[in-house]
Parts: sequence; structure tokens; C-alpha cells
Amino acid sequence: MATALIEAIQQRYACREFVAGKQVSAEELARVLEAGRLAPSAFGMEPWRFIVVTDEAGRTAVARACYDQPAATTAAALIAIVALVAALEPDSDYVRRQFLAEARGRDAEPIHTAYRSFYRNGSIAEWAQGQCNFAAAQMLLQAAHMGLGSCPIGGYDTPALTEALSLRSGEVPALVIALGQCRHDAPERIRKPFD
Amino acid sequence: MATALIEAIQQRYACREFVAGKQVSAEELARVLEAGRLAPSAFGMEPWRFIVVTDEAGRTAVARACYDQPAATTAAALIAIVALVAALEPDSDYVRRQFLAEARGRDAEPIHTAYRSFYRNGSIAEWAQGQCNFAAAQMLLQAAHMGLGSCPIGGYDTPALTEALSLRSGEVPALVIALGQCRHDAPERIRKPFD
Repeated sequence: MATALIEAIQQRYACREFVAGKQVSAEELARVLEAGRLAPSAFGMEPWRFIVVTDEAGRTAVARACYDQPAATTAAALIAIVALVAALEPDSDYVRRQFLAEARGRDAEPIHTAYRSFYRNGSIAEWAQGQCNFAAAQMLLQAAHMGLGSCPIGGYDTPALTEALSLRSGEVPALVIALGQCRHDAPERIRKPFD
Repeated sequence: MATALIEAIQQRYACREFVAGKQVSAEELARVLEAGRLAPSAFGMEPWRFIVVTDEAGRTAVARACYDQPAATTAAALIAIVALVAALEPDSDYVRRQFLAEARGRDAEPIHTAYRSFYRNGSIAEWAQGQCNFAAAQMLLQAAHMGLGSCPIGGYDTPALTEALSLRSGEVPALVIALGQCRHDAPERIRKPFD
């Protein structure tokens, strides 16, 4: 088991174009979603929702919101990670439910108090979008682990994507993950050196 | 290989207290850092720097900035993920270097232009901190994969942590990862249901 994770890490790369007509199975999608669901988040807040888009009309609409970049137009499936911004208001039903669960039967008030103070200090929308990257990272690795190509897409027209996904008020797109069989090999890996 | 990644995902949990005096080896630290180094980031920007703190004085100072929470005071090693905020100014040497590398010999101007437009629209500090979660997620999984306990710590006094880490101007802490041998088993896992 010692090398398996680093292999997935090394095998993941941003696929710019997928093989047309090559489906992603329901089981593969379920595994990717499960990897995202189990991701960590600050305060155990899980401030996300995942929307899977596989039908042609839906994919076309989401791809258009992503400026028709080839990774989006050729993907077999698109998973939108949506940040639950309005739900993060400190006295929302959502926050109460999350802290009640997170407290595991102990007193939820101390962490709730810490959260109230945190909430006053920050830009909650950008924070929630950043938290979604924990889920995204695990989903991208799970895709690579199964030999699927993937591309994280952060460049989109937010109003158009909001409409394409029929988001509720107070939900904000954080990232779109395109999935499919990649048409090209991994490009030469570019990273800053270790030191 | 099909189950190894999900095992790491399932085995990772936030460790609240580590076994005193139990070291993390240099090789383990190197593997965790490598997992972070290979993480994806928008625009290939890698807007991060990792600082490893293992000496007692350094750990004490960082733990104090983290309000002396037990995960920080008992950790064998602390890795601070630092967001390179000032370096992200669109015409900085850093940004030019990253785009030159990312373009792999092709014209770097189109992505640089897209980045300039992106930069005008957003809060770059919070965006960079959110990007650091890609690296954090891979580091936490790598730790779990090797049987190490870990805890992501986002609750800290920013000025105190900035001083403890001797950060340069324009660098902002994004997350502290505490590492060691966990003193307790995984708590019951709390997550929203799959549906």
C-alpha cells in the first residue's frame, strides 16, 4: 500500500480534452462523490453540495458557462461543487444541525461560539469556496486512482453557471470537475522544486 | 490498487492529541511535503510555501499562536502552509516565472491575460488561502496513508503565527497541519448522507 497514494497523486493531471462518447460509469461517479463526501472541512461544516451533470443538454449548458473550453465540452460527466454560502449564517438550521452532529452528544455551544466569532471576521463566500477545494482534491485523486481523466475548471461565468445548475439563492459555484477518458497523455509536469 | 485510496480517505481523521515524544521521521515529512508539492492549483499558480517546524522552541511558538490547542501542543511536527499573497500581483516576477513554466514553451500571454482579468475581480488573499487546501488535502491523505495522525488547524491568531513563522511581508498563513502518532482512535465519522 505504501506507493499507491503517491501513484494517484503523480498520475493526476489536468486533462484538456476527453475522448468523445466515452462514458463514465455510475459506479465511478459514485466513488468520486464518496471521496468528496468524506473530505475534511473546518468546523466539520461540509459547506458544499455536489451536482452531477451527465445529460447532453445539461453538459452543454454547463460547458457554455465554462466558456466552451474543450475540457468542459468533451467531458462525459461534469461535477459542480457548490458552496453553501447562505446556509453558513451562524444561527441557520444548517449550522445548528452540523454542530449538533459534530459534537457527538457533547455540548455544541463552545464550537458554535468560536464559529460565530470566526464568521464575523471573514468573507464567508470566499472561505466556503476555498473549503470546497478539500472535497475537490479528494475527488480528483479518486478519479486518477481509477484511471479516469479529470480537469478542475475554475474559469466560468458565475451567473451563467448558477442558472445552468439551477442553484438556489445563497449557493455559489466553487469549482467544476470535468471527467472522462483523457485524449492526451500527461504533459510534462511543472512544479516548483522541492526546496 | 482499487481500494487503497479510499482506505486512506476513510482512515484520515482530525487527531486531537498526539503521543508525546513520538517523532515523525524525516522521510515521512518528505513524503507529506511531496504530496503537497504535486497538488493542483488554478492557473498552475502553486500559491504556497510549506514551513516545517520540528524543533521544540518553534513548535511551542506555533502552538501558542494556535491557542495552545492540544493537537498543536502535542504534535511531533507542524507544517504551516503559507499563502504567497503579494507574489500573486499579475506582473510580479513570481507570476511571470509560473506562467513561463506552465506554458511549456508556448505563448504564455493568453493565460497571463486571463489571470489579469481574474485578479481584478477577486479577493486574492482569500483565494490563495483556499488554493492551499488542495495541497493540504493531499498532505493529510499522505499522512493517513503512512499511518500518521494529522490535524488541520485553521484556528490561530494570524499576527502571532506570522511572527512565529517569521513570514515575509505579503505572506499569509493558510493552514497548520499537526502531525504525529495519534493518541486516540478515529471518532465516529460524522458526514452528511450521500444523497
